Amino acid sequence: MKGIPPATVQRLPIYLRCLTEYGPETISSETLAQLARVNSAKVRKDLSFLGSYGTRGVGYDVDHLVYQISRELGLTKDWAVCIVGMGNLGKALAKYGGFGERGFAVLGIFDADPDKIGKKTGGRTIEPMSGFEHAVKERQLSIGVITTPASSAQEVADLMVDAGITSILNFAPTVLSKPENVDVRRVDLSTELQICSFYLTRAAGKQAS
Amino acid sequence: MKGIPPATVQRLPIYLRCLTEYGPETISSETLAQLARVNSAKVRKDLSFLGSYGTRGVGYDVDHLVYQISRELGLTKDWAVCIVGMGNLGKALAKYGGFGERGFAVLGIFDADPDKIGKKTGGRTIEPMSGFEHAVKERQLSIGVITTPASSAQEVADLMVDAGITSILNFAPTVLSKPENVDVRRVDLSTELQICSFYLTRAAGKQAS
Repeated sequence: MKGIPPATVQRLPIYLRCLTEYGPETISSETLAQLARVNSAKVRKDLSFLGSYGTRGVGYDVDHLVYQISRELGLTKDWAVCIVGMGNLGKALAKYGGFGERGFAVLGIFDADPDKIGKKTGGRTIEPMSGFEHAVKERQLSIGVITTPASSAQEVADLMVDAGITSILNFAPTVLSKPENVDVRRVDLSTELQICSFYLTRAAGKQAS
Repeated sequence: MKGIPPATVQRLPIYLRCLTEYGPETISSETLAQLARVNSAKVRKDLSFLGSYGTRGVGYDVDHLVYQISRELGLTKDWAVCIVGMGNLGKALAKYGGFGERGFAVLGIFDADPDKIGKKTGGRTIEPMSGFEHAVKERQLSIGVITTPASSAQEVADLMVDAGITSILNFAPTVLSKPENVDVRRVDLSTELQICSFYLTRAAGKQAS
C-alpha cells in the first residue's frame, strides 16, 4: 500500500476539479497551485505521491494527471450510493448532477416518513426503511449518505452498518459511534463559511492598516 | 498580517469542530490529529501559526484553543449571510442549524421565481431579487451563498458583486468569473464522496492482499 498522507487525499478532489475545468493540455504546478489555492511546492509534493513529477518547462499533462488522480481516488469504477433522509438536503443530493459525473450512482433513496414514501425525487422513488437492508445487498450499495435530522442519525448509521455498509457520509450535525472497520466522514456545511470569514477578516485588516 | 498557509486555514474549521465536540479540558496533539484525520506533526505545526504550542505531557487547553481558532477565523464577530436560490439546497441551508452556532446569521433568502417569493423557509420569508441590492446595503450582508442552477449562477454572482458583496460561496456546479477583490469559493458536494471512494478502494486492496 502506498502511504498517501490524509491531507494529500483531502486535496486530490480539489486538484481533480481544477484540472477538469482547465482548458489547455498541460499545466504548471504554479497554475494548479493558484487554482487550488495551495502553494506550488505542496502541489509538487502531493503529485509526487502519485508518481507524477511533470516536465521541466512544460508542466504536467492534464489528461494524464486526471487519470492518475481518478485512479488513486478509486473513481475509475462506479460506486453505488444510497441516501437516507429525504428532507431538503437529501432531495438536493438526490438531484445533484455532480455525483454521476464523478462515478457515483445514487441507486437508493429512503425515508421513514410514510407521506414521502413512493414519491419521486431526482428520477428515483423514495423507498421505506423496511426494504433498506435488502436493497443494500441486492444493489451492492457501498456508500451510505445520512441526511436525516440529528436525532435519527445514529439509528440510521446502525442500520447501515448492520446492512454491511462500511463507508458513511454524515451530513447530520451529530457525532456517530461506529465499529472500527466502518469509515464515517462528517460533512459540516459551515466549514466553507468559516474559511470565507477568515479571508473577509484578513481583507478588513488590510483595509484598516 | 500573519501568513497562515491556505492549507492550514482549510484545516482550522475541522480542528474547531473536533475541539467543540471533545469532552475533556485538555487535548494532546495526537488525539486531535486522530479526530481530525491528519498527522500529529501537522497539527502542532498548524497550531504554532496561532501561537499555540501546548504543554509537554499535558497538551493543549481546549477552551483556549477554541478561542484562538475562532479568533483567527474571524468567528468572534457575527457575519450576515444571504442565500440566493431557494431550491432544495437553498432551503436546506436556510434551515441549517449549524450556521447560527458558528456565528453566521442568515438575514436574507432570495429567489427569482414569483411562486416562491413570500413563502417561508427556516423562519424567513423568501424575497424577490428586485430588493436584493437594497437588502445587502441595509442589512450589511457580507457573505453571499449561491444555490441556483448553474445557468443562473453567473448572473447572481454579478448582482452580488454590484451590491458590494466581496465573499461568495458558490454551490452551483460552474466556474464563476469575478473581479480581483472578490473571493469566490466553490463547494463541490462530491468532494467527500471521492474521499470515501479512496478509503473504500484502499480497504478493498487490503482485503485482497
